[in-house]
Amino acid sequence: MLNRVRSAVAHLVSSGGAPPPRPKSPDLPNSTSAPPAGPPQAPRSPPARAGSGSAAPARTVEARASFCRPTFLQLSPGGLRRADDHAGRAVQSPPDTGRRLPWSTGYAEVINSGKSRHNEDQACCEVVYVEGRRSVSGAPREPSRGQGLCFYYWGLFDGHAGGRAAEMASRLLHRHIREQLKDLVEILQDPSPPPLCLPSTPGAPGSSDSSHLVGPQSCWSSQKEVTHESLVVGAIENAFQFMDEQMARERRGHQVEGGCCALVVVYLLGKVYVANAGDSRAIIVRNGEIIPMSREFTPETERQRLQMLGFLKPELLGGEFTHLEFPRRVQPKELGQRMLYRDQNMTGWAYKKIELEDLRFPLVCGEGKKARMMATIGVTRGLGDHNLRVCSSTLPIKPFLSSFPEVRVYDLTQYEHCPDDVLVLGTDGLWDVTSDCEVAATVDRVLSAYEPNDPSRYTALAQALVLGARGTPRDRGWRLPNNKLGSGDDISVFVIPLGGPGSYS
Amino acid sequence: MLNRVRSAVAHLVSSGGAPPPRPKSPDLPNSTSAPPAGPPQAPRSPPARAGSGSAAPARTVEARASFCRPTFLQLSPGGLRRADDHAGRAVQSPPDTGRRLPWSTGYAEVINSGKSRHNEDQACCEVVYVEGRRSVSGAPREPSRGQGLCFYYWGLFDGHAGGRAAEMASRLLHRHIREQLKDLVEILQDPSPPPLCLPSTPGAPGSSDSSHLVGPQSCWSSQKEVTHESLVVGAIENAFQFMDEQMARERRGHQVEGGCCALVVVYLLGKVYVANAGDSRAIIVRNGEIIPMSREFTPETERQRLQMLGFLKPELLGGEFTHLEFPRRVQPKELGQRMLYRDQNMTGWAYKKIELEDLRFPLVCGEGKKARMMATIGVTRGLGDHNLRVCSSTLPIKPFLSSFPEVRVYDLTQYEHCPDDVLVLGTDGLWDVTSDCEVAATVDRVLSAYEPNDPSRYTALAQALVLGARGTPRDRGWRLPNNKLGSGDDISVFVIPLGGPGSYS
Repeated sequence: MLNRVRSAVAHLVSSGGAPPPRPKSPDLPNSTSAPPAGPPQAPRSPPARAGSGSAAPARTVEARASFCRPTFLQLSPGGLRRADDHAGRAVQSPPDTGRRLPWSTGYAEVINSGKSRHNEDQACCEVVYVEGRRSVSGAPREPSRGQGLCFYYWGLFDGHAGGRAAEMASRLLHRHIREQLKDLVEILQDPSPPPLCLPSTPGAPGSSDSSHLVGPQSCWSSQKEVTHESLVVGAIENAFQFMDEQMARERRGHQVEGGCCALVVVYLLGKVYVANAGDSRAIIVRNGEIIPMSREFTPETERQRLQMLGFLKPELLGGEFTHLEFPRRVQPKELGQRMLYRDQNMTGWAYKKIELEDLRFPLVCGEGKKARMMATIGVTRGLGDHNLRVCSSTLPIKPFLSSFPEVRVYDLTQYEHCPDDVLVLGTDGLWDVTSDCEVAATVDRVLSAYEPNDPSRYTALAQALVLGARGTPRDRGWRLPNNKLGSGDDISVFVIPLGGPGSYS
Repeated sequence: MLNRVRSAVAHLVSSGGAPPPRPKSPDLPNSTSAPPAGPPQAPRSPPARAGSGSAAPARTVEARASFCRPTFLQLSPGGLRRADDHAGRAVQSPPDTGRRLPWSTGYAEVINSGKSRHNEDQACCEVVYVEGRRSVSGAPREPSRGQGLCFYYWGLFDGHAGGRAAEMASRLLHRHIREQLKDLVEILQDPSPPPLCLPSTPGAPGSSDSSHLVGPQSCWSSQKEVTHESLVVGAIENAFQFMDEQMARERRGHQVEGGCCALVVVYLLGKVYVANAGDSRAIIVRNGEIIPMSREFTPETERQRLQMLGFLKPELLGGEFTHLEFPRRVQPKELGQRMLYRDQNMTGWAYKKIELEDLRFPLVCGEGKKARMMATIGVTRGLGDHNLRVCSSTLPIKPFLSSFPEVRVYDLTQYEHCPDDVLVLGTDGLWDVTSDCEVAATVDRVLSAYEPNDPSRYTALAQALVLGARGTPRDRGWRLPNNKLGSGDDISVFVIPLGGPGSYS
């Protein structure tokens, strides 16, 4: 992510400000001792040797920390050097030989044009097996259940102020999701509605029959029905939270400086869950139609949430910022004049008399890619950033940065997909210079040039999208065919076929 | 509004809790001395004698306070009694003789079936003239300007816990809008972008040239462009706020108990602004297509805003409520067990171990029309309610109730409207039993039975919509043709033609 944190590296300080740590989940590794994420039992379709470095021995972590790429790229030392070359900007994809990514997923990436030392994007593609904990309801486990669940997982992580948060998230976030799903394995495989209440100890006598627990003394006339789908959404939401808390705990020992945007896809039991925290984007292109599967979280789109937090907790602004928005910086000579403003409740603008505290820097300022929160950061959701402070200040940014994703759900069973229907994930390097419609046109152009059952077509499409956003070197810059500047940012793209030969397997 | 406040009348207390009052706008009347709202200069199209009682002399206010209907209904004493008859539930509309409402607007209403003593809905339809203050930019006023502006105004106010807040809002909210627009008269008539900064004193030397004020020392590379449209939105938003503050100031002397939802439409300079705070609804039916122009604000739709406020300001929960949501009430015997919950960041559900504080009543509970905030109220935005407390408690509800509307804008000039294109406003009495599609079907059925240039067709349509929601007395209740119960609530409907003979005039 380019320029997202204004000189953030220079302003990192190591002092505190993190939330009190939760007890770590027992099965989760810390950031340096991550064992392979592979399934303890083979999934129905064996995964490619995927996972960003998850199979690497622990002692190589320190070396990798300076520069690593997803292991599914299978880069040789020479390939790693080429991937790190800001001048050549060679597009990287998994080799055409050997095992493909699950569902014949296409992937391509390219490093930035020199704005940060390494590629700060990371990616992960895994098939994850979830073994259930022992019967959560206390009832004897039926033989047909307890088989565990498999989910397919794709993640893009766009780092800023260093690549370590993105690297850590790419290695661990799916494990946090697995951890959150462990309690749900049995419930998700039971077609009846999830129990509202579970006994305290798995296996202990207790009732998971929710209807039993609603006594006549209940002051509510009804109870809310909770769907299986919303349990998966809740599991993913909490996994992001736990990942962020792990980063807070481990930031000192392992120098998890910086932060990252996270865009992940989970396919489980017929449904695709797209979780986004940051400014990456996911769209489905189905029969030429575009279905947005995420929205971006920036100081502009989250203005009202940020202003509300600043208004309700003014101590977070440290006397340095005002929660009000102005169309430009207020100047001291304008005291007493009337300027346009918006507060946290407003979408329109009105005039107010300028007072002394309006001279403070606004919490949210700027527009488009130049929008900033606290004059520092251009995204408002993501993982990490626990050490990030306002420039020349000890004021922490983190309370305003949310680690919670927005999760959208797409039911794959509701539509008969053809091999040209794809889910495209891209970091902002793609979307800064490519519209949804242009992506859909490239999908059509590239896929129609390949046989529908050719599994390499999705990698070709990912490469075409990355190349189209990068451009070619010309006139002292990377330029698109229309001569506009291409993206100088890191660019990473997954193309997930929704009706391809390998999907659902 | 039926049942929206659970026994709220019984729990009204007169103690404080209001925000510190702002200085009252000098031109605004208080609630008992309202002079007629009519334009000081005749608008281009003379308004019908509209405004809910705005022309009544001050001494009749006390008498009216117990029961009044919009003056544009021109009800005789006998008509007023019939309008107040819960048994007959006669549909009321403006008489077919005399001046019509602006744009030939249709209107109809019916009282509830006995759940509250009087009809707690109120309505207002006005043409409002806004005289500009002296040249706000300090520049000499050009002869072509300074003519003032006219806006067309429609408002529906659905009261709860008494009708006085609705009545007060119906008499005064458009005056607050006028007050907010006074400073903008000249700016809105100037095609150049609004100045970002104005001199402190109108007429004083000063620069309204915003480009001049952005010195090279500005740390922002650009300034935000603010549209004329967003100034009108801001004016309406602040008018709601001022109206609410006036209710807070005057609640004791004039017994402005209770509160109301407010749905208003402003037509100004080619655009329709629909502002909604509550659970009334507005839709446009255009060429048979439905365009939603509002959304409802209820404990369900605003769950996350309410939970965030309770989480950030736990003192507002008074130790009686938890900001967490549970699918049903947690019982003491379930301590230590795990129950589904959602916090302010989540849209999905997860299990958590029940702790002592989870036994508190949840801030948000119930579903659909039974959803309640603090076990008390079923809407989360509106005007008034400054005295409303939680049942058997002194805990104020108001901090959670927002007086800010959501404003949607519809550009009338972007489409050539035909006489069958209408904007329909209804209180929840209509929408509880009528879907958007059913309204669209009624629009088609009724309007096609009239000549396109017959101005009475919109009143006939409003009546048909009210009758269709009320039903007919049968089997000990008001029943719809499908034998389901009709709405027992107050029902009020405006039908505003977008391309009718009188519109835009």
